[in-house]
Amino acid sequence: MSGELDALIQLLAKLPGLGPRSARRAALHLIKRRESLLDPLAAALARAAAAIRPCPVCGNLDTVEPCAICRDPERDDGVICVVEDLADLWALERTGAFRGRYHVLGGTLSALDGVGPEDLSIDRLIARLEPGQELILALNATVEGQTTAHYLADRVAGSEVKLTRLAQGVPIGGELDYLDDGTLTAALKARRAL
Amino acid sequence: MSGELDALIQLLAKLPGLGPRSARRAALHLIKRRESLLDPLAAALARAAAAIRPCPVCGNLDTVEPCAICRDPERDDGVICVVEDLADLWALERTGAFRGRYHVLGGTLSALDGVGPEDLSIDRLIARLEPGQELILALNATVEGQTTAHYLADRVAGSEVKLTRLAQGVPIGGELDYLDDGTLTAALKARRAL
Repeated sequence: MSGELDALIQLLAKLPGLGPRSARRAALHLIKRRESLLDPLAAALARAAAAIRPCPVCGNLDTVEPCAICRDPERDDGVICVVEDLADLWALERTGAFRGRYHVLGGTLSALDGVGPEDLSIDRLIARLEPGQELILALNATVEGQTTAHYLADRVAGSEVKLTRLAQGVPIGGELDYLDDGTLTAALKARRAL
Repeated sequence: MSGELDALIQLLAKLPGLGPRSARRAALHLIKRRESLLDPLAAALARAAAAIRPCPVCGNLDTVEPCAICRDPERDDGVICVVEDLADLWALERTGAFRGRYHVLGGTLSALDGVGPEDLSIDRLIARLEPGQELILALNATVEGQTTAHYLADRVAGSEVKLTRLAQGVPIGGELDYLDDGTLTAALKARRAL
């Protein structure tokens, strides 16, 4: 195999979701579709590298500073939704159910991986907060996510900020028989009147 | 989401093995690792597009014409191994068990998909053949692969070329209980003395 092809395969194999075998398939696919896929992808990568940068306010990625969400005058300044990662922001945006602002932490606290508060954009979040705002902690329901949520709650405690978190319970379409005990317990504790 | 990011995700989603969700993850992964992954990948794609071309002899992809395998003086000119696709050539090369030449057909005959002999590099293969050579039909054990093998056997019939095909039987590590009837039947028919 030529060095150029091998180098391309090695790099493709570093993408999440592609192993060595699927990276080879992807490389072949690209080379066979030079005009329709390889050239446009090379150009899109170059454009993304040149134009996309993190928003200095919320950490979202965009070509404008601040990002389109931070600039949008239609959105509610009174609510900031804290997410771990940009993928979580995208997931919430796809629902169309949230019209406030975001704050992307860039990860979660993790003693195991040596991630402390200074490695996340927590100070920037605290500096953004204004009295009377609502802060929704939309962190993953994992140990790290919940540790980070507790830490944020401690940091915000005493200020005039209203802290909330996402509801936990039975997912839509979920079958009780297949749910883990923790989810069922949380759903039972948080039961609501019909 | 910015247009540049969206365009990148749309293109990544066209790679085999990446759906819309994993394309989003891959795009995020790339943007976060600009120096170590995004820039090198953009450069590798540009280099591959500029340098890699199909070998005019065998159809392998390489930066030199003819390709490194066709040029290698150590390889046996007396054996040509016919494969459907470049991925099959790579799979055989990884074994290190074959030291002859290759011929990449570029697909298989398929009436359903409208692929006829003129769409594959069959004429080029016939033109390469010399009396006394062995032609190994290393085509997939699928209906299309076997149809193509039969067609090639017809085309070569009457010439001084020795036709062979890959052995069929129980794969190494295979358990009889999990094998399909066709494989078991083939393995039984082709049984060999111990």
